[in-house]
Amino acid sequence: MLHPDRLLPADPGVRRLARALYERTRDLPIVSPHGHLDPAAFADDAPVDDIAHELVSRDHYVLRMLHSQGVPLEALGRRPLGDDAPPTPGREVWHTFAEHWHRFRATPTRQWIEHTLGEVLGIDVPLGPDTADDVYDAANERLADPAYRPRALYERFGLEFLATTDAALDPLEAHARLRDDRWPGRVVPTFRPDDVVDPDRPDFAANLDRLADLTGEDTGSWDGYLAALRARRAAFADLGATATDHGPATPTTVDAPPAEAAALFARVRGGGSDGRTDGERRADAACFRGVMLTELAAMSAEDGLVMQIHPGSWRNHDPAVHRRFGPDAGADIPRRVDFVGGLAPLLGRLGHEPRLTVVLYTLDESTYSRELAPLAGHYPVLRLGPAWWFHDSPEGMRRFRRLVTETAGFHNTVGFNDDARSLLTIPARHDVARRIDAGFLAELVAEHRLDEAEAAETAADLAVGLARRAFRVDP
Amino acid sequence: MLHPDRLLPADPGVRRLARALYERTRDLPIVSPHGHLDPAAFADDAPVDDIAHELVSRDHYVLRMLHSQGVPLEALGRRPLGDDAPPTPGREVWHTFAEHWHRFRATPTRQWIEHTLGEVLGIDVPLGPDTADDVYDAANERLADPAYRPRALYERFGLEFLATTDAALDPLEAHARLRDDRWPGRVVPTFRPDDVVDPDRPDFAANLDRLADLTGEDTGSWDGYLAALRARRAAFADLGATATDHGPATPTTVDAPPAEAAALFARVRGGGSDGRTDGERRADAACFRGVMLTELAAMSAEDGLVMQIHPGSWRNHDPAVHRRFGPDAGADIPRRVDFVGGLAPLLGRLGHEPRLTVVLYTLDESTYSRELAPLAGHYPVLRLGPAWWFHDSPEGMRRFRRLVTETAGFHNTVGFNDDARSLLTIPARHDVARRIDAGFLAELVAEHRLDEAEAAETAADLAVGLARRAFRVDP
Amino acid sequence: MLHPDRLLPADPGVRRLARALYERTRDLPIVSPHGHLDPAAFADDAPVDDIAHELVSRDHYVLRMLHSQGVPLEALGRRPLGDDAPPTPGREVWHTFAEHWHRFRATPTRQWIEHTLGEVLGIDVPLGPDTADDVYDAANERLADPAYRPRALYERFGLEFLATTDAALDPLEAHARLRDDRWPGRVVPTFRPDDVVDPDRPDFAANLDRLADLTGEDTGSWDGYLAALRARRAAFADLGATATDHGPATPTTVDAPPAEAAALFARVRGGGSDGRTDGERRADAACFRGVMLTELAAMSAEDGLVMQIHPGSWRNHDPAVHRRFGPDAGADIPRRVDFVGGLAPLLGRLGHEPRLTVVLYTLDESTYSRELAPLAGHYPVLRLGPAWWFHDSPEGMRRFRRLVTETAGFHNTVGFNDDARSLLTIPARHDVARRIDAGFLAELVAEHRLDEAEAAETAADLAVGLARRAFRVDP
Repeated sequence: MLHPDRLLPADPGVRRLARALYERTRDLPIVSPHGHLDPAAFADDAPVDDIAHELVSRDHYVLRMLHSQGVPLEALGRRPLGDDAPPTPGREVWHTFAEHWHRFRATPTRQWIEHTLGEVLGIDVPLGPDTADDVYDAANERLADPAYRPRALYERFGLEFLATTDAALDPLEAHARLRDDRWPGRVVPTFRPDDVVDPDRPDFAANLDRLADLTGEDTGSWDGYLAALRARRAAFADLGATATDHGPATPTTVDAPPAEAAALFARVRGGGSDGRTDGERRADAACFRGVMLTELAAMSAEDGLVMQIHPGSWRNHDPAVHRRFGPDAGADIPRRVDFVGGLAPLLGRLGHEPRLTVVLYTLDESTYSRELAPLAGHYPVLRLGPAWWFHDSPEGMRRFRRLVTETAGFHNTVGFNDDARSLLTIPARHDVARRIDAGFLAELVAEHRLDEAEAAETAADLAVGLARRAFRVDP
Repeated sequence: MLHPDRLLPADPGVRRLARALYERTRDLPIVSPHGHLDPAAFADDAPVDDIAHELVSRDHYVLRMLHSQGVPLEALGRRPLGDDAPPTPGREVWHTFAEHWHRFRATPTRQWIEHTLGEVLGIDVPLGPDTADDVYDAANERLADPAYRPRALYERFGLEFLATTDAALDPLEAHARLRDDRWPGRVVPTFRPDDVVDPDRPDFAANLDRLADLTGEDTGSWDGYLAALRARRAAFADLGATATDHGPATPTTVDAPPAEAAALFARVRGGGSDGRTDGERRADAACFRGVMLTELAAMSAEDGLVMQIHPGSWRNHDPAVHRRFGPDAGADIPRRVDFVGGLAPLLGRLGHEPRLTVVLYTLDESTYSRELAPLAGHYPVLRLGPAWWFHDSPEGMRRFRRLVTETAGFHNTVGFNDDARSLLTIPARHDVARRIDAGFLAELVAEHRLDEAEAAETAADLAVGLARRAFRVDP
Repeated sequence: MLHPDRLLPADPGVRRLARALYERTRDLPIVSPHGHLDPAAFADDAPVDDIAHELVSRDHYVLRMLHSQGVPLEALGRRPLGDDAPPTPGREVWHTFAEHWHRFRATPTRQWIEHTLGEVLGIDVPLGPDTADDVYDAANERLADPAYRPRALYERFGLEFLATTDAALDPLEAHARLRDDRWPGRVVPTFRPDDVVDPDRPDFAANLDRLADLTGEDTGSWDGYLAALRARRAAFADLGATATDHGPATPTTVDAPPAEAAALFARVRGGGSDGRTDGERRADAACFRGVMLTELAAMSAEDGLVMQIHPGSWRNHDPAVHRRFGPDAGADIPRRVDFVGGLAPLLGRLGHEPRLTVVLYTLDESTYSRELAPLAGHYPVLRLGPAWWFHDSPEGMRRFRRLVTETAGFHNTVGFNDDARSLLTIPARHDVARRIDAGFLAELVAEHRLDEAEAAETAADLAVGLARRAFRVDP
């Protein structure tokens, strides 16, 4: 079902080179420094209960494609907010998915799911409307086997490091249990403070109150707020975190003198009862988000947590879906961004800090060669994250390498992130990246731009070495 | 002259796959849901009189290339506005064209014209300065033959549906004759209301008066104006139209409450004598265009006419050419567009309407992967039109497939549009698309991302199936 | 060390075609109409003293890559402003460079330096940390040989025309000596007036005073200022200049009536003591830059100097580097640009001037197919410069051809510019371009879009013919 040469270049000579490079990386360990798994799954070592809920109901790539073709989200196992009826049973969800399987032709979802079913779960029946039941039953049977529990899979997959993404206010209970457990796997949190730095969120003030409770700091003052954030960062680092993660709408940053920042904080902290107009409130909020990106970068320069920034998504673009189903239902849409102007204040202040690493991701591919490669090819603090989200795909990765490498080289990039929401799909995602990188390097060898030894060394770097170094994972 | 493997991938293994796929689509029927032919040609079944006027003087691709190289438009058969002298004779135009034929190397114009001369007209002499007379005479001799009349060509080309583009105020006389004719060909109008929705046009008020005359509605009121537009849409649909077509400068839409829309209409309908400043008038006009895109989408959700939107062209960028020759002389230039912000109001109101289909086209390729594929990959009402205008070319089509497919899949696209201005070139245009799609699919097969049966099914979809479904053409 | 087929397409059949095309262009003369060599090197025929200072310390591509990886600029032979200590010795610089040589994998810098060391200097030891001394000594030994003096290299490289870039205020002393010399090489200046058209420069007023001194014109008045610029252009043309060069931050142009332009000039000439607010001063400066692009184009329409415009670089983005090392230390970053709106005023006034040629370059590749190819494919005065700066690279050149050719054809482009800062690298740069163009044309032949004779003719055009014509170099 899965061809051993899949995703390698078609030209026979280049394919031979690519296959040799791929063979050298396919069994290397997996470093997964950015993803969205539930740490409790590892703390509890709980089995996955249903393949349909795992691969369909919780996967925004799958939801959005089927939604675009007219399938209601309810039929895919999602429930409207406030609707307490049980979700559509897994078998029905799986039937709907299988009927629409041909919609995923030539998408990365197809690659991931075929690899997951075939290689991870060992199912040799191709998915389709006629085989939906067979595949569903076989998959769920596997998942009930202890060999498919999270810890066993972590080991079988050759994982050596796996970071989850955790809100600043998360009590990190599962991570604390993992730290105290004798299991040798390394599953660590990532500090994501989006909830406590955006005054436009309706729960901003409440979140700052919770932040005060968690840390014992006075989040009514600028200094106390910063101290509280530092305290949470330290708590994350204590549990093994090596990075932070930031998803602002734009990469705009502001470098404000402390007194101005404090005054701005006082205004946004106070909320709406201070006589500001709507326009002034919006401008304050935007400015504050920019100030906080810079302040959080300054904290990274102190505590050494690698800072990831991935701007440019218009979250919840579809108001009907947002109202009914809440966030993360597939309706996020990229927009144009300006990294060069946006990051200038942050880089002007911190661009040479020796302990700082800032990893940039984009959904706006026009910035690869115009902005990101030139920025990362100059500033010592900058590194480029891999092709992200909609571009985490064979063609997307090829564009990333072709558009970035000539200006930034390989060493200003950080290897691959799987960004996975299901542990089952992690090998598939890294496998796609290793195959595409092998093909890219093979093309360079075939054009005599790199020799085979250099290509082999670079392939190992792209597969695992650069991720270890950028995310400060000791091998 | 025309190599049977032209435009197929160079790698021998991939070419074999591509050739097999192409062979399965080359003789499929042609659905042409978007173009600019004159319906009277079919109603009258009138012969084309001169190959030079047909392929040179009326083709904006040819005019602009030769103009850019210093050839005056007069030498290509265009007359300045108000100049009643006869145009340059066809033979002279053809000589000029043949002398400059090498300017078209590696352009789609070259592909189209070689196919038209070689395959459609059966001329086996390659075009060049030395053969200009021979080709000209042979072509005009063919065109005088009844076998080259429009209806005969429609049948020979395997056309099953052909839509023209017609202004909202067009009396549709030729289309009415076609409906009443016993000829079985299906040549239908497309409703293009640009003339009656843009208050910045000098003839806006006059056009609304004509709209009132045509429909018997009072276009002095908002409700009457909407009723008049509905009446024209119904008249188009009666003559077989399945779609509307909209070419706004930007994709900005506005969702205005009825009372606000009515007040805005009253201001823009009244013209300039109401004390508004120039800035206010411009803002009103821009807002009104945005309101009307939304209102026209709402009408499509009612009457089921598929809505095509192709924004982003700065029409008549060259004032000297515009003054002397009027519009459509090759001086339209694309600009950056924002679909994500622009369409949010329309999609927020109508993004889930079951009868609505909106087909989006772009000249700004940076929006393919950043905006269009993510939007069409979420909203059920959206579909993506093919690589358009300057991008209706081999490389342009490849970019479209590579940048769109991984996020939107094939089923959120609508197949090919020829956008032709000459019936003679329609087979050439569809042939280029079928070859490029065969090559794209063959590459997916060669990389084991698709099997051959899936590729064959998809090739047929791209050639004709998706167009039939998207444009609601019953096969 | 250098494979004879490097940079040619990997497919064996396409490579055969590409090799044949490349063989026909590899030994054609070199026309170098745009670069940054020191004319005094030719006037004095002075030897290059040190390979490390020549290829590392003065090359912004090399500086930026090593800086991005944490190497201080001081270690690369740069001295901070005002620091009079001698720079790091060449041998040490070369060691640092060699240790980091693997950072340049898959970059054009690698291609250029391997070619320069291997083909120009005849060194057959591959560069690396272990061979740094051997390569350094061998290179410097060659450079001490009279056969490696500038004039000998000019002849050996087959150069037939080489333009330097010279400030409007440059006294052109070396160029005057070259004119009076009997050496037959053609090394000419290019008029670059950026220093005297930007009121935001701190030395603007002082520069205008110097302009007055140089020309005897009264640069206190608009008419005198224009006359002074015309006088400098004539002085450049007397020394063989065929072109001007302009690097504005944006391509914005303004077409102002003479009286308005004169009033604006009076304001910006006067500086800050006239009661304008900061905002008004900034707006005046921006408007003046736009006016001057148009006025300088009008002068080109008179005197026939080809006008080159390359907008869109945010110069000196890194304030720390700028403060310490001054400009040109590698911290220039591209930004988004709008050619279509920006150039509309200039093109509206001068788009059809028979003596005018404007050559456009971009760092924003999203403009290739959206803006530049459509503009150059219509306006007779426009031509497109080659893939520029960060895009002067194998993949960058391929993107340029693929994105530009189908709309603009080959004849609206101007061949290759090396933009070199070291004479030693000129053959390498042209060789890369000729190989990539041979590969692009071979692909067109392999897909039967061009026949071999046409491809051969086009290859020669791209290698040298188009540059001769566009830059008005008599062969």
